[in-house]
Amino acid sequence: MITLTVELAERSYPIYIGADLLVLPELLTRHIQGNQVMIVTNTTVAPLYLAMVEQLLDGYQVDSVILPDGEQYKNLETLNLIFDALLEKGHNRTTTLLALGGGVVGDMCGYAAASYQRGVSFIQLPTTLLSQVDSSVGGKTGVNHRLGKNMIGAFYQPQAVLIDTNTLTTLPARELSAGMAEVIKYGLLEDLAFYRWIQQHIDNLMAGDATLLARAIRTSCECKARVVAQDEREGGIRAILNLGHTFGHAIESHQGYGNWLHGEAVGTGLLMAADLSCRMGAISVAEVDELKALLVKASLPVLPPADMTEADFLSRMSIDKKVLDGRIRLVLLRQIGQAYITSDVDRTQLCQTLAGAALNG
Amino acid sequence: MITLTVELAERSYPIYIGADLLVLPELLTRHIQGNQVMIVTNTTVAPLYLAMVEQLLDGYQVDSVILPDGEQYKNLETLNLIFDALLEKGHNRTTTLLALGGGVVGDMCGYAAASYQRGVSFIQLPTTLLSQVDSSVGGKTGVNHRLGKNMIGAFYQPQAVLIDTNTLTTLPARELSAGMAEVIKYGLLEDLAFYRWIQQHIDNLMAGDATLLARAIRTSCECKARVVAQDEREGGIRAILNLGHTFGHAIESHQGYGNWLHGEAVGTGLLMAADLSCRMGAISVAEVDELKALLVKASLPVLPPADMTEADFLSRMSIDKKVLDGRIRLVLLRQIGQAYITSDVDRTQLCQTLAGAALNG
Repeated sequence: MITLTVELAERSYPIYIGADLLVLPELLTRHIQGNQVMIVTNTTVAPLYLAMVEQLLDGYQVDSVILPDGEQYKNLETLNLIFDALLEKGHNRTTTLLALGGGVVGDMCGYAAASYQRGVSFIQLPTTLLSQVDSSVGGKTGVNHRLGKNMIGAFYQPQAVLIDTNTLTTLPARELSAGMAEVIKYGLLEDLAFYRWIQQHIDNLMAGDATLLARAIRTSCECKARVVAQDEREGGIRAILNLGHTFGHAIESHQGYGNWLHGEAVGTGLLMAADLSCRMGAISVAEVDELKALLVKASLPVLPPADMTEADFLSRMSIDKKVLDGRIRLVLLRQIGQAYITSDVDRTQLCQTLAGAALNG
Repeated sequence: MITLTVELAERSYPIYIGADLLVLPELLTRHIQGNQVMIVTNTTVAPLYLAMVEQLLDGYQVDSVILPDGEQYKNLETLNLIFDALLEKGHNRTTTLLALGGGVVGDMCGYAAASYQRGVSFIQLPTTLLSQVDSSVGGKTGVNHRLGKNMIGAFYQPQAVLIDTNTLTTLPARELSAGMAEVIKYGLLEDLAFYRWIQQHIDNLMAGDATLLARAIRTSCECKARVVAQDEREGGIRAILNLGHTFGHAIESHQGYGNWLHGEAVGTGLLMAADLSCRMGAISVAEVDELKALLVKASLPVLPPADMTEADFLSRMSIDKKVLDGRIRLVLLRQIGQAYITSDVDRTQLCQTLAGAALNG
């Protein structure tokens, strides 16, 4: 087992990464203060892991709430199911919420913890690659609004993140691909050596090689923890982690949440960010093609939806959180392995990217 | 104009108290960073003050959302109306929300600000006595759940609190009484001299004497600011401000939100807390009677609802946030002008208070 730390002064917390972690009661219970636990999970994950987690919690009042599975349920209505369960079971301020599932479960459980009685503890038990490498770390929690993704939420840190890599054995291939998009993102944005390593091992990673996946998770979490420690509330540098996400969020909300997986939209978004960076002269066409090939090997989509127009993109992107005083801010590549944040985007070049000419060409 | 400060390090903010403050643009605009403003108000307050506030904001993008008036609308559904307005009007992370109204508007606007895009700025413009002396200061924000009051929310501080005492000239008598319950609370809990002053001036306060009301607001805000500065997130001493509230919340939720005003329930709750303190030997029957007389002069109810049983109280109180690991914690009086927090409550004496024998006798 590897232990990383997210350094945030009094809000610091550990990330445990390893196989067979969900059979070690003490690893979990050391982070539980009171005697009440509410496990928040979904209809897909509950049959696989709920009983296993409950077994770790002998002697506690353990309740659970099983949400419908999918990004389309990440909203205030579903969030309220968590509050219903907490209040019906009499959970008080000392309760601890456990987020057992992927990114949607983690984001909703975290926001419920931030909001219940104005804040209770929670622990992340991510069971998908995407949540293990990205969403479970860093304290971004929230739900979607019909007019924009993650528009309602809080920065709220967990007590701990416990990543049992065994859970990847039950992960559907499509979900593995979605998570790989975020892994590739870390390489692209700040670590050329890691990017090359992913290129080298992509076939075995996608085949589920446990050792390689553990290393990918570790390196991704190290990057995430480092950036979050510098800028917890995204006043500046943290926005770099949104590489590909402004394009991706536009795709997700245009398609209707749950049709494209978040990671799939990010994959296409990464390629669009690279395409625009190329048009602006920062990276070569060959490098864009190389990224495209990597995404294809990860079974990720490399084209935005065929029915999505330039105008669709612009309208969705202008409502994205990364818009400051009316100007679209984007994360682009100065080179492979080095991203930067800019509001200085040429509208013509952006529209060329959105039109998808190069992508479709 | 008087300026107080809530001392919370980088989250410190001013409270301005005075007449004719809502005609001074600079007092408001100095606390607005971006160029977008969303005024959150309700159907009662909008006809009175919305145009006046809009006039202060020349040069900004000013939008408004008018909520239905009443505690029964303080829920996630109404909260979502604020998010709808923000997104439909394209408000970004630099927007500032203005809470123009009473406690319900302030609590919901504050929670919307805490949650929109994971946190934007807001300013409190309280227009009721209750919100001026209590709810606009200290950063408690949130909404109710059908199973408990303020169960969903955040600690989130405003940029400033701007109390224009002129707004009290349009306040209905019942709302003035409700606010007076919180004023009386501050005297009872830590300031005997203030309590005596209220007793002395209660008739003129209730008649709307502007000078006396301004002094009551100032002294109340000073107390609130002092306590909040010591314990922003209610880890300890801040709970003292809940004197009367555990009983009061039980009454409010039993009656259905909006039937009793919050301040009315707090008034009765104060008397119940005094009654229990008397049974426990801390204060005299004469002192309880004196408080009862003061509440009557403030036109506040002094009896819990006739149909509310001991069991109703116990079940509602056990779900109150102030319950820690199954034990009811209460704020009681050691003497008039000195409250304390305790879990050491004799169940028999509590039940005698709940049965309301002394109150009804």
